[in-house]
Amino acid sequence: MTNTQVTLIQIDNYGPWTVTPTPRREVDLQTMQSRLYADVSQLVGNRQGYAFFGRFDNMVAVTNGLDVEDLALVQESIGNRYPVTASVSVAVDASPVAALGRASDRLQDAGSAQDETRREILRGETLADEDRTDEDVQIAHFDVNDATGKYTDELNEFDTFIRIEQGYAELMRYMRQAHDSLSFFVGGDNVIAVCADLDAADYRDAIDHVNEAVDVDLKVGVGQSGVAQAAGMGAKHALEECREDGTAVEFAERPAVVADDD
Amino acid sequence: MTNTQVTLIQIDNYGPWTVTPTPRREVDLQTMQSRLYADVSQLVGNRQGYAFFGRFDNMVAVTNGLDVEDLALVQESIGNRYPVTASVSVAVDASPVAALGRASDRLQDAGSAQDETRREILRGETLADEDRTDEDVQIAHFDVNDATGKYTDELNEFDTFIRIEQGYAELMRYMRQAHDSLSFFVGGDNVIAVCADLDAADYRDAIDHVNEAVDVDLKVGVGQSGVAQAAGMGAKHALEECREDGTAVEFAERPAVVADDD
Amino acid sequence: MTNTQVTLIQIDNYGPWTVTPTPRREVDLQTMQSRLYADVSQLVGNRQGYAFFGRFDNMVAVTNGLDVEDLALVQESIGNRYPVTASVSVAVDASPVAALGRASDRLQDAGSAQDETRREILRGETLADEDRTDEDVQIAHFDVNDATGKYTDELNEFDTFIRIEQGYAELMRYMRQAHDSLSFFVGGDNVIAVCADLDAADYRDAIDHVNEAVDVDLKVGVGQSGVAQAAGMGAKHALEECREDGTAVEFAERPAVVADDD
Amino acid sequence: MTNTQVTLIQIDNYGPWTVTPTPRREVDLQTMQSRLYADVSQLVGNRQGYAFFGRFDNMVAVTNGLDVEDLALVQESIGNRYPVTASVSVAVDASPVAALGRASDRLQDAGSAQDETRREILRGETLADEDRTDEDVQIAHFDVNDATGKYTDELNEFDTFIRIEQGYAELMRYMRQAHDSLSFFVGGDNVIAVCADLDAADYRDAIDHVNEAVDVDLKVGVGQSGVAQAAGMGAKHALEECREDGTAVEFAERPAVVADDD
Repeated sequence: MTNTQVTLIQIDNYGPWTVTPTPRREVDLQTMQSRLYADVSQLVGNRQGYAFFGRFDNMVAVTNGLDVEDLALVQESIGNRYPVTASVSVAVDASPVAALGRASDRLQDAGSAQDETRREILRGETLADEDRTDEDVQIAHFDVNDATGKYTDELNEFDTFIRIEQGYAELMRYMRQAHDSLSFFVGGDNVIAVCADLDAADYRDAIDHVNEAVDVDLKVGVGQSGVAQAAGMGAKHALEECREDGTAVEFAERPAVVADDD
Repeated sequence: MTNTQVTLIQIDNYGPWTVTPTPRREVDLQTMQSRLYADVSQLVGNRQGYAFFGRFDNMVAVTNGLDVEDLALVQESIGNRYPVTASVSVAVDASPVAALGRASDRLQDAGSAQDETRREILRGETLADEDRTDEDVQIAHFDVNDATGKYTDELNEFDTFIRIEQGYAELMRYMRQAHDSLSFFVGGDNVIAVCADLDAADYRDAIDHVNEAVDVDLKVGVGQSGVAQAAGMGAKHALEECREDGTAVEFAERPAVVADDD
Repeated sequence: MTNTQVTLIQIDNYGPWTVTPTPRREVDLQTMQSRLYADVSQLVGNRQGYAFFGRFDNMVAVTNGLDVEDLALVQESIGNRYPVTASVSVAVDASPVAALGRASDRLQDAGSAQDETRREILRGETLADEDRTDEDVQIAHFDVNDATGKYTDELNEFDTFIRIEQGYAELMRYMRQAHDSLSFFVGGDNVIAVCADLDAADYRDAIDHVNEAVDVDLKVGVGQSGVAQAAGMGAKHALEECREDGTAVEFAERPAVVADDD
Repeated sequence: MTNTQVTLIQIDNYGPWTVTPTPRREVDLQTMQSRLYADVSQLVGNRQGYAFFGRFDNMVAVTNGLDVEDLALVQESIGNRYPVTASVSVAVDASPVAALGRASDRLQDAGSAQDETRREILRGETLADEDRTDEDVQIAHFDVNDATGKYTDELNEFDTFIRIEQGYAELMRYMRQAHDSLSFFVGGDNVIAVCADLDAADYRDAIDHVNEAVDVDLKVGVGQSGVAQAAGMGAKHALEECREDGTAVEFAERPAVVADDD
């Protein structure tokens, strides 16, 4: 069973900051945002977690394996290196959507995202070491079948981009409503989803739905482990198998020790 | 009349690189991609242009005011600082979509994005100095009405994100099909569009369409100038006016000198 | 007794790369070097180590607490994000100089720094968990007495810089020859030294020597712990005590548990 | 004749910031400093200037070709992206040392580097376009003869580093006192000097002095142009000639147009 530890990292009072005293140059905002995300990605990623840029001012991370002290370090590092601060909230649940829901609630209880006195909140509970298992995190790595051949090398880049965005928008919505999962665009034609304990039929259902709804043809590799990085690497290898075998859904083999635990 | 110089920056052979010899760690890919974009944003932005991350492996920039030598420098800088190289293609048109179309065509003619022998292509034409005017670039800056109050402080962060993505996916599609414009999500609840010469009725039409299609309520500030940065800054100030006055569409005043040229 | 784990991180074949096929733009080299160092600093620092930029193409890190797998990750991350690769060599010794000596020897045995076939070497031994103690790393944080008042606010910035460089050059040489320690300029008027097990008299000796040799007046805070970060933070707090009390040498209090082990 | 525009970029109130409210983690300071420098290097370098990290909290740049508005942009960008702000002062003189002297004076007149109310000062004069010539900037690029063969591949890395630092400390001091020039270590075994209008005999004198004083054997390539980048690239090519021909001092050929101006 999955037991995903989801962390919401929210830049404090960001909207007002971007226009105070007058609107700041977009180029600096874009640079600052994308570097701040890169740093969060490193700080979380080098502890085996995954961080997604999401809306940039609200980033979502899978942080199984990180304790509150590790999250405090992420928060402190942002404050030491950027002109803005961040609040951090964490929750654990079998359903990634439910975990992010509780993390959001906690932050909202502490005050508005645009309340200038609400700064560097750190809330929530992490998964105790004794409760961790090798199945806590399920990661699915989707991509578009032959995106380069069918789109990038054929269409106007913007029409390619529109196709991929329509596919993503539909997938993220469906995976959340039908399967309690959080899906994030990660560049190119790739989407990574943080999933509840789904099986191959669930993934086939999601792929079929997107195909019918917006005519975008996906495949997916799935990995499961105690931390996001191992699960995600399994998913990538499984996706390579899809590519080689022409299949639509592949699961990474779970390590024997996990099988024993079942 | 607009005369937008649009540049496509495409990482060479990126997909294969990410899985050679085996899939690379996602955290490193995310870090590398977002920093590469931040650098492109700086290199273009400090010459008054705007760069959008798009799919990260295919970035789109508005580069009025940059000549081919400036674009060659962006290309050289990427090669000097990253493990990947980039191809660059540029075209000019009254319609931003048509400009990007020609830039895409040129790159496709030079070979596939996944052809490992096609590297550091630099193609296209820039707008001659004598043809430049103060109306060449129209930038529209959209955001969601009361996103923090209605979504961020109320909903699960992922449901907020879904709402904003649905709004963006619909807006990008409609602005391209109905109005020949290129729209990019830039973080938070913000979308920046590079537009053909649209008027207030066009923007009201787009806002109404998105509201009806996906029930997301937008407003927009619009600026126009000879370069993206001035146009974009005008758009930001106009958006502030929307905020203060509760209006849905505001245009930045054009400098008198432009009016004289009409 | 100290037992310092010292890691040498050497960019492979860097000199030739900077001039191949022709000299690369200095601005890109400077940007790439300083960012690569920033990343190494983060990768090592977020595991409680300290990394120093040194000559940038040869960085030195104190890595107590990191195992070979952690160092392999640093190496892999560099290769995934930069146009260059790095070789890594690690050794442990009571004397930091001796440890770096063995780490250097190992790398030299593997081939020249400018041999283009010698890439991504990873050599050496780390300190076994059972051999680690709370005294393994001694860090000294030096600064110049009233540098702002006497130099920055009075002299030409370059003459200030010359004074500080003369002080650093003399300190680094003396600390290495007389006290088996590695000293690194870290910006401003600050030098951090990785030391063998020195006492207050040793530090007074070094401060007196620098004062006599080049007339630069230093003070120092010293910390000791099982990892660089805790030792270094102790040193910083001790240096604050020097500032408040007007003293030249202060040691951070060691945690009681360490005293018990003595 | 040279006419160097030298800019001092000083982080406001940096020392106190690093220890407020308690000392900040060294890893974050190192990361922030080196990235801030990388950004300054880009912002200046992409306008044909050179920026040197110096002491990191005080950076020196050669900014011929940049006007006050360009420098204001550097300042604004730092404020938009970092937790600290910077003051900027610029002056022009045939002697780089005199230029930096005046720039320093102006900043000191505005208040102490550690006065928390002195923020984002921007002072000084730039070289008017009509006064610019193709000889304004002379750049010398030094390196150590066979540093890899004699040092890197033979000595303990720290002993190599000590040798290079002793050579640098002596060169910077001598070039300032005897030749009115500003020398900066730029990594590896390289030093770049911003020089008054020196000739080959001056450079031979400096090389001989360093050899006698600290037994470090240097060679140098020299370039001259209207901006730092072209002068510096000339210097790099001239240094390659030294390497090929075994000579100690080489000047890049000046473009014919400059000779005509004499």
